[in-house]
Amino acid sequence: MYLETINNSKDLKYLSLEQLNILSAEVRKALLHKLSQHGGHSGPNLGMVEMTIALHYVFDSPKDKIVFDVSHQSYVHKMLTGRKDAFLNKAQYDDVSGFTNPLESEHDFFNIGHTSTSISLACGLAKARDLKGDHENIIAVIGDGSLSGGEAYEGLNNVVEQGSNMIVVINDNEMSIAENYGGYYRNLQELRRSKGKSENNLFKALGFDYYYVEDGHNVEAMVNIFRQVKDSHYPVVIHVHTIKGKGYHYAEKNKEKFHAGGPFDIETGEYLSNETKENYNDLTGKYLLKKMKDDSRVVAITSATPVAIGMNENNRKIAGQQFVDVGIAEEHAVAFASGIAKNGGKPVYGVFSTFIQRTYDQISQDLCINNNPAVLLVFWGSVFGMNDETHIGFFDIPLLSNIPNLTYLAPTNKEEYFAMLDYAIEQNDHSIAIKVPHMEVISKGVADTTNYKILRSKVVKKGQDIAIIAVGDFFFIGEQVIDLLKQHDIYGTLINPVFIHGLDIDLLDELKMSHSLVITLEDGIIEGGYGQKVASYYGPTNMKVKNYGLKKKFYDRYDPYELLLENRLDANLIVEDILTLIK
Amino acid sequence: MYLETINNSKDLKYLSLEQLNILSAEVRKALLHKLSQHGGHSGPNLGMVEMTIALHYVFDSPKDKIVFDVSHQSYVHKMLTGRKDAFLNKAQYDDVSGFTNPLESEHDFFNIGHTSTSISLACGLAKARDLKGDHENIIAVIGDGSLSGGEAYEGLNNVVEQGSNMIVVINDNEMSIAENYGGYYRNLQELRRSKGKSENNLFKALGFDYYYVEDGHNVEAMVNIFRQVKDSHYPVVIHVHTIKGKGYHYAEKNKEKFHAGGPFDIETGEYLSNETKENYNDLTGKYLLKKMKDDSRVVAITSATPVAIGMNENNRKIAGQQFVDVGIAEEHAVAFASGIAKNGGKPVYGVFSTFIQRTYDQISQDLCINNNPAVLLVFWGSVFGMNDETHIGFFDIPLLSNIPNLTYLAPTNKEEYFAMLDYAIEQNDHSIAIKVPHMEVISKGVADTTNYKILRSKVVKKGQDIAIIAVGDFFFIGEQVIDLLKQHDIYGTLINPVFIHGLDIDLLDELKMSHSLVITLEDGIIEGGYGQKVASYYGPTNMKVKNYGLKKKFYDRYDPYELLLENRLDANLIVEDILTLIK
Repeated sequence: MYLETINNSKDLKYLSLEQLNILSAEVRKALLHKLSQHGGHSGPNLGMVEMTIALHYVFDSPKDKIVFDVSHQSYVHKMLTGRKDAFLNKAQYDDVSGFTNPLESEHDFFNIGHTSTSISLACGLAKARDLKGDHENIIAVIGDGSLSGGEAYEGLNNVVEQGSNMIVVINDNEMSIAENYGGYYRNLQELRRSKGKSENNLFKALGFDYYYVEDGHNVEAMVNIFRQVKDSHYPVVIHVHTIKGKGYHYAEKNKEKFHAGGPFDIETGEYLSNETKENYNDLTGKYLLKKMKDDSRVVAITSATPVAIGMNENNRKIAGQQFVDVGIAEEHAVAFASGIAKNGGKPVYGVFSTFIQRTYDQISQDLCINNNPAVLLVFWGSVFGMNDETHIGFFDIPLLSNIPNLTYLAPTNKEEYFAMLDYAIEQNDHSIAIKVPHMEVISKGVADTTNYKILRSKVVKKGQDIAIIAVGDFFFIGEQVIDLLKQHDIYGTLINPVFIHGLDIDLLDELKMSHSLVITLEDGIIEGGYGQKVASYYGPTNMKVKNYGLKKKFYDRYDPYELLLENRLDANLIVEDILTLIK
Repeated sequence: MYLETINNSKDLKYLSLEQLNILSAEVRKALLHKLSQHGGHSGPNLGMVEMTIALHYVFDSPKDKIVFDVSHQSYVHKMLTGRKDAFLNKAQYDDVSGFTNPLESEHDFFNIGHTSTSISLACGLAKARDLKGDHENIIAVIGDGSLSGGEAYEGLNNVVEQGSNMIVVINDNEMSIAENYGGYYRNLQELRRSKGKSENNLFKALGFDYYYVEDGHNVEAMVNIFRQVKDSHYPVVIHVHTIKGKGYHYAEKNKEKFHAGGPFDIETGEYLSNETKENYNDLTGKYLLKKMKDDSRVVAITSATPVAIGMNENNRKIAGQQFVDVGIAEEHAVAFASGIAKNGGKPVYGVFSTFIQRTYDQISQDLCINNNPAVLLVFWGSVFGMNDETHIGFFDIPLLSNIPNLTYLAPTNKEEYFAMLDYAIEQNDHSIAIKVPHMEVISKGVADTTNYKILRSKVVKKGQDIAIIAVGDFFFIGEQVIDLLKQHDIYGTLINPVFIHGLDIDLLDELKMSHSLVITLEDGIIEGGYGQKVASYYGPTNMKVKNYGLKKKFYDRYDPYELLLENRLDANLIVEDILTLIK
């Protein structure tokens, strides 16, 4: 096996082209084996085998620097740069993350998990090279799906302006996570159809030297093209046609399903865990379909993650014109929603919390200054969301709750969520975001008939001395604390704040009469969040306040339960703290 | 005078083409007259006279909907839609804002002040139109400068995908605020040179129907092209060549100077107020030039506002390759800086606070997760910065201080600022942002020799009972409070926090021994800011805390001194509060 002899990308250089072909087969087999047992990004990586081998064969990493966009397609790169054991030996599978990471290898230049950034990052590497008078090659590898993000376009523009060596490799597998949308994709299609010869050419128009490779799985073709552009003195685009999921029948057939996922049965192409547990994503999809049927102005928007709002292929078909996938383009999504709302439509933009970060200015300027009644649904904004450093979802409260004019609602259960969502869609007054709960779906079994036009926090249990204000899906911790306190003859007040962009001042003032301690609990970082608003309000008074949440930090591959304990987000520990505080 | 008869854009329709020409001259004259007395965006508006008249002549606003990007070029539109008196009568000059605003007129669809948003906003209007089965024209007018922003590209992509009527008018005056940079501008240049005939055509590549107009100041040509595309069933780009500052000699000659500014002498083309007061922008430019000379790795970056870092035309020439204007592309700027830092360069990105909002995700993901030692300088992040609703600069603390791994420094005077800046450039440990003061330059006359590697808040005056923690350029209010308190026999402690992304816990603990009240002062909104972190820390203790700052809100054309008073940010009022609190 050649793969076992590759301890470093330098070891590749001694192989013949024929041997590279054998190596490709070995790499693909190893990849598929690990992926089927461990899960991960199958489609993107299976499609990058030959290209990655050719990259490391021709270029001299780490002197030559390769930046992988979003790094969902960097597994083969890891296998060839000293990390093969993490793919060959089950016990070592978790030695590597799913992303490039400088802490793992000198061949990795950035920790990357959000899309559309590679060209700008690489442009910076190239600028420093030029300032220092060095001469290495700088390569950005970016998928067609990632190129729809505005940052990628800003990068392309500036690479041309910079004018010196930079090689942009476009891995065109004709897919984002789901289908691609947008004018740019029509151009890619035209370029593929014409084998790169169409006169309509976005990259040439921008000033790039452009090359097309029809078969990205032909190692020799890839080696040749990379040799041709190596040490180029000007910016080059290599447009490579690849097949997402290449070499694995089921992944080639069902590209969306095999973009990423858990362990699967290689023989049948079925995921082992077929989780059918009720979740807020699917429930939202169901609700929206019904709402769309009743009201033709309702339109669901996603930025390339239709699963967030429960819009699987079938639901997308049913929704028709009332569903829009804008591609990886969160900024457009928010401005688009604002425009729709302004002209009498009812837009609902659903987005994973980690990606709402990409659109702060649009929420502020395009949407909230204009008070347009668009609805933003923030999913997985929780310690129980994605746990990779680059995909953390618990920065949403400081991000959103400090933007003027934005109402940010935090439902605590299913009925409350749908009552709020319905209110948000029906009202015409302002922009509303909802922090969709992300723990198991809690149903009260009774419809929520609250009138959310009048924003008040809810006193769920009236007590004295101690009040617990428990936000959204951490409401259950508040309930536990209240219960535990009874064992100490303390009968506290339990509050569901309902909205977290501001405070229910009347209620807070009322609490002062018969309470001496307020506890806040939120599923997010403490800094800049809801609890700190409460602490600030009570600051000049005798009321004591203790805020619970997570300490501001990029946590990587954490265990959510451990993280909660570390931050004392546990009913028993909180009761312990309370008893100390009121002593 | 025809202009006086135009009370609404409908009144235009009765004029002949010849009369439209006369009207153009009248409009330009009126515009120049007001601009010379009142100030504003001269160049962009002088270049839009004929185009705007043609737009309102051909289309039926407000049924047909025109969205002006950034709206720095919407003055003529205002004159033609019922607001001419605000241009003709000095007493009414301030009846209109410098931006489109739905509160002013039904012909304005959005309050817009940040660039690159019009296409996406208009795309939303068009989507709602389609959902409702309506048939009006939707028009986005965008300058060449604004098209470098990623959001504009995301918009173009999606307009093509949407496929229905939308008319994108590109006002190509060959300038951003300063020169344009990037591959896209080379394409515009090629298209101008070839009169729209070059086969390299970004817009055709994206799938637009493309039209070129060589002389955007020919009313007839503009009327004809708009008539041709009116009611088009598919997306159209009209690329119009105009002259920035058209019709005013000095503005045509010196386009950057006349992009925007205060009142000027029409005869001489000189601004009336030639402010030469020392300011942090120019000082930064001087410092950076010197630093560049000493260290070839230092590179200053701007996103189309070189004035922010004191990089006027002359300084840009001196800096050479060590200055990069990335165009309006804040996201790229941050990722680019991260890449430069990673490869051993020393990037300093200077940006106005209102625009740092456009790059939250890049600061978090591209920069801070990677701990790359880039320097971000945030200018005009102050109540004394720009006071238009869309350009407010005091949301930076909640935005930046809650991003993990980012050090946010807040100097209180000139020497401290440059000591921090020098430290930030020289260190290799992490990403550092500096909240550059924005009131008059305060010099202590003594070099600051603090070692900022060890981050500690500074106790400037040691006292007891009451401690004032005064951030950055509000430090002077803290000094005043301390002084005033003496009259009441209170000798308080004055603290300069130095860093505002976290707390000096040791110091806060120490204060507990001999203080009962802590006051925080910051030049920014209270919500999510520095003071609330202090309040949260002391929440469970007996220490009282009162936070001073601005209430979260979009304030429009405010008087900074009134706003400070409204928020009790005044030494006398604060002392009043303190005396009440400690009674």
